[in-house]
Amino acid sequence: MDVTDLIIDVEAHDIRFPTSRHLDGSDAMNPEPDYSAAYVIVRTSGGQEGHGLAFTVGRGNEIEVAAIRSLAPMVTGLPVDDVLGDLGGVSRRLIGDSQIRWLGPEKGVIHMAAGAVLNALWDLRARRAGKPLWLLLAELSPEELADVVDFRYIEDALTREEAVALLKRAEPGRAERIAHLKAHGYPAYTTTPGWLGYTDDKLVRLAKEAVADGFTQIKLKVGADLGDDVRRMRLAREAVGPDVRIAVDANQAWSVGQAVSWMEPLAEFEPYWIEEPTSPDDVLGHAAIRERVAPIKVATGEHTHNRVMFKQFLQAGGLDILQLDATRVAGVNENIAILLLAAKFGVPVCPHAGGVGLCEMVQHLAMFDYVAVSGSMEDRVIEYVDHLHEHFTDPVRIRNGRYLAPELPGAGAEIHPASRAAFAYPDGPEWATPVAEAV
Amino acid sequence: MDVTDLIIDVEAHDIRFPTSRHLDGSDAMNPEPDYSAAYVIVRTSGGQEGHGLAFTVGRGNEIEVAAIRSLAPMVTGLPVDDVLGDLGGVSRRLIGDSQIRWLGPEKGVIHMAAGAVLNALWDLRARRAGKPLWLLLAELSPEELADVVDFRYIEDALTREEAVALLKRAEPGRAERIAHLKAHGYPAYTTTPGWLGYTDDKLVRLAKEAVADGFTQIKLKVGADLGDDVRRMRLAREAVGPDVRIAVDANQAWSVGQAVSWMEPLAEFEPYWIEEPTSPDDVLGHAAIRERVAPIKVATGEHTHNRVMFKQFLQAGGLDILQLDATRVAGVNENIAILLLAAKFGVPVCPHAGGVGLCEMVQHLAMFDYVAVSGSMEDRVIEYVDHLHEHFTDPVRIRNGRYLAPELPGAGAEIHPASRAAFAYPDGPEWATPVAEAV
Repeated sequence: MDVTDLIIDVEAHDIRFPTSRHLDGSDAMNPEPDYSAAYVIVRTSGGQEGHGLAFTVGRGNEIEVAAIRSLAPMVTGLPVDDVLGDLGGVSRRLIGDSQIRWLGPEKGVIHMAAGAVLNALWDLRARRAGKPLWLLLAELSPEELADVVDFRYIEDALTREEAVALLKRAEPGRAERIAHLKAHGYPAYTTTPGWLGYTDDKLVRLAKEAVADGFTQIKLKVGADLGDDVRRMRLAREAVGPDVRIAVDANQAWSVGQAVSWMEPLAEFEPYWIEEPTSPDDVLGHAAIRERVAPIKVATGEHTHNRVMFKQFLQAGGLDILQLDATRVAGVNENIAILLLAAKFGVPVCPHAGGVGLCEMVQHLAMFDYVAVSGSMEDRVIEYVDHLHEHFTDPVRIRNGRYLAPELPGAGAEIHPASRAAFAYPDGPEWATPVAEAV
Repeated sequence: MDVTDLIIDVEAHDIRFPTSRHLDGSDAMNPEPDYSAAYVIVRTSGGQEGHGLAFTVGRGNEIEVAAIRSLAPMVTGLPVDDVLGDLGGVSRRLIGDSQIRWLGPEKGVIHMAAGAVLNALWDLRARRAGKPLWLLLAELSPEELADVVDFRYIEDALTREEAVALLKRAEPGRAERIAHLKAHGYPAYTTTPGWLGYTDDKLVRLAKEAVADGFTQIKLKVGADLGDDVRRMRLAREAVGPDVRIAVDANQAWSVGQAVSWMEPLAEFEPYWIEEPTSPDDVLGHAAIRERVAPIKVATGEHTHNRVMFKQFLQAGGLDILQLDATRVAGVNENIAILLLAAKFGVPVCPHAGGVGLCEMVQHLAMFDYVAVSGSMEDRVIEYVDHLHEHFTDPVRIRNGRYLAPELPGAGAEIHPASRAAFAYPDGPEWATPVAEAV
């Protein structure tokens, strides 16, 4: 008897880590984040699972969970092979539902929910193929890759034909680059020293440790108090010496004019990039800032909500460094579109990571980019933060300031069942202590 | 004994009207909308109520309701006078919560939820003042108006000082304009004839009725099939004659190049504006289209998610007509910012309406704009669609193609309790019939 394998469930779980208790992750706009996951498990009738998540910073994670539950019926009950064999079509259905679309379109809660479901489906596909996601993607043909991308609204900057041609140009070197990745990994930079809530001593100690650990770039949060920023930037520069890059990150704290004037006294410490100087929606504002703070580079992307916005950032010269995020946009599919756009415009992608699971997920995209899209690691680094990796079944491995290439099948988002249970919100044991503050 | 009046509850209700059963509201991207409200009631310990809503088109309304419930604790329990006396501060808290903000920021589900709560608070304030909202706003001082606006991220285009100066310039004529509004109302245009799902006969009949009813502008949905659009546009032009404006609305159906080529064969029928030709996020795309379809005007705004996006549309020349929406952005506060930006750039505002309750709500903003901001009705019209008004306690009144100025206290969003009960989703009696299809 022929039994078709079906998707029998798309579960959504509210998982939160009480990171605000130690000010890990504190910045100018996020003083007390509780790193959280709206966590998706796709289950098949054959007993397989695909895992994905949308990263949030605490309150509101329940809204993201509700959104995932609203999307779940669109794939539940379908044959697994049909879904995994047409992830482009599934993506278009998830982001194009004629009623739910109104709540975006293609932005915010509803778009991140589509991304979480899509990432879980890619995880399932990679597991069934027995490959880590980066390698699965790197071995798809240019046409197969183009099939999963929605070119709607970006055709004025990148057509399907251009995308295929771009991917074909990168095909010859794929095997060597796969071998290189497996041998040497991919460069990282670390944000660990630079959280606003840390003392000067802790900043200096962690900055020195970062250099000793082989990192060639660190990042500092700025934007709350100019005097503090000048002092911390000086300490950091003294700690790491002249040759290590120091990026600074304002997390959207400024208006356009303020961004420019705030960066002036920091310039003597040679910041490499200024990240999120203003509203992530302000393409033209970023372009104006970029013109005025050069040669300091402008970086943004973790809150850039879809490929249409990235297209404009590239068209308008609004960024030097494109920081895609694994869970902000509509999953692997839209991130492939974004990598293609960046390659078309010759802009390096340095993915946003940290949070919970972002390092685990985004490394696959950067490595795929290296093998099959841009073909380059030049001026490219993946963010690294050493929080919460112990909760993942395939945690990132950092050696000498580089991400080692993942080897296990999947996309990296799976959290240990024990951690999922412990940090389930609001009923898990980690939230049942007097310290926990539920709102 | 002195008893402080408190906000004791912020309720959220899921109310849906099964409009898809008759193809009312059908367009190129929304073939079968069920016009819905994520409906807010703010209750005070003194027994007063404020009503607001976020408009959606069916599925996903439950996510919007969840988001409102997540915001509710931020105002529940506070003294009414403190909240209503500092709606600028309340707005900044609602959109700036350091954790929930991650889900936007300032866009989509979470931003619309903030808007629904803020609009309910403005409704409460207007009721307590015994005035319709438009008049309440029109009688605030320039400084009071500036106090409710968040100038963050728009200061490069409009500072608080410029806003106050602009409002002061409009002060002298306020009394005359209030009298004029009360006597003559505000011009409307009608979308009723133009839904894609209607037959040619129905289109022609409704177009002729619109002219007979005094409307000087109608609107047709386009973008699904070019042959159909040419035929329908010809029929409409024949029906209304050469002097009535016909706007067309693609509801985001096209890429940039497609928008330009699709409009070419329609040009002979002299469309007044093309609305939402492409992605609402594509500021630069709209600017490119606008340059190439002139003298046809470009209109957009119903999906423009915040003041930062409107700022860029104005800076980049991405629109000729700004179509703000009562429930897309963060409520009355952010719409005041948008009206101020439009006035600064000299662009007419023609609000988006229709749906459920949008006509009732948005008329207040247009009338306030006329009295206290732009001071003009020239080339300004409020959209009108004759659906679902019977469910409102203060339905719009249209006479000879014009909105009559609302007279009852409040902001217009209150739905009759009987309608709220009948159309409650999924358990209300209107959804308990075999016709209803819940997803």
